[in-house]
Amino acid sequence: MIQLEPIGVVRSPFAEPSDVPRFAADRANVKGTIEIFETFREGLEDLEGFSHIVLIWRFHKSEEASLDATPPYDVGTKGVFATRSPRRPNALGLSIVELDTIENGCVHIRNFDMADGTPILDIKPYIPENIDPASVSLGWLEEARKAVLESLTD
Amino acid sequence: MIQLEPIGVVRSPFAEPSDVPRFAADRANVKGTIEIFETFREGLEDLEGFSHIVLIWRFHKSEEASLDATPPYDVGTKGVFATRSPRRPNALGLSIVELDTIENGCVHIRNFDMADGTPILDIKPYIPENIDPASVSLGWLEEARKAVLESLTD
Repeated sequence: MIQLEPIGVVRSPFAEPSDVPRFAADRANVKGTIEIFETFREGLEDLEGFSHIVLIWRFHKSEEASLDATPPYDVGTKGVFATRSPRRPNALGLSIVELDTIENGCVHIRNFDMADGTPILDIKPYIPENIDPASVSLGWLEEARKAVLESLTD
Repeated sequence: MIQLEPIGVVRSPFAEPSDVPRFAADRANVKGTIEIFETFREGLEDLEGFSHIVLIWRFHKSEEASLDATPPYDVGTKGVFATRSPRRPNALGLSIVELDTIENGCVHIRNFDMADGTPILDIKPYIPENIDPASVSLGWLEEARKAVLESLTD
């Protein structure tokens, strides 16, 4: 077993995970804050200047983990590691968010998907991946998205 | 405190973290495996078909955490959260790797940067971010890269 200690906590207008809009476009201008605990604040030095940051966090309100998940598409159940379901072993969340400013240990962010009270486990600078989009395939999600598009043009 | 349980372990030709080549180009065709522990294997269902996967893992051999880090550029120390240093609070690593095949709970991967024995905490499908590269700034790293390029053309 591995023991982790949160480095801070999210202050978000989304009181509950179910309040977080599913689509990024619906939360584009919403602002929030990560309050970094005092003992970790020195580690924020030099982070301002990065436009985006990567957050690793804990789904602190998710129900018991399950090895299968039911994505929000008409595709039945999928193995949990092939989805972004919160009900996953270790309940780790991962987000890339926009960084506004940092003051007194408060990291002001935009375009995020965490609910109020979410424990933050790590912050890393976002450095774009050097991955050719043409080389990426999305497995079952590709089919699911195609079906949604087709149903829209019916 | 939060308790996590590894879902699997990496089998890698890089015996020690210091054996992992720094540049992606130098490890492009190296192959490795994640052995998923039996109780978690059912969660791998439907993951094949994704070309890339996101791994959250633990720097299991990193030294004590520090709030400042010395990146491999001539830039002095930086706050640890503004770097990818392994010596960070919670010692979490994050990688996007190529997925080859999955058989008997073994996830065969390419282009990874984990040493042998690395505990894996989560696997997620890689879905490219919708971030305009022109909107991304890299803070101190931008300056550092510019200085390296200039020194090369001197």
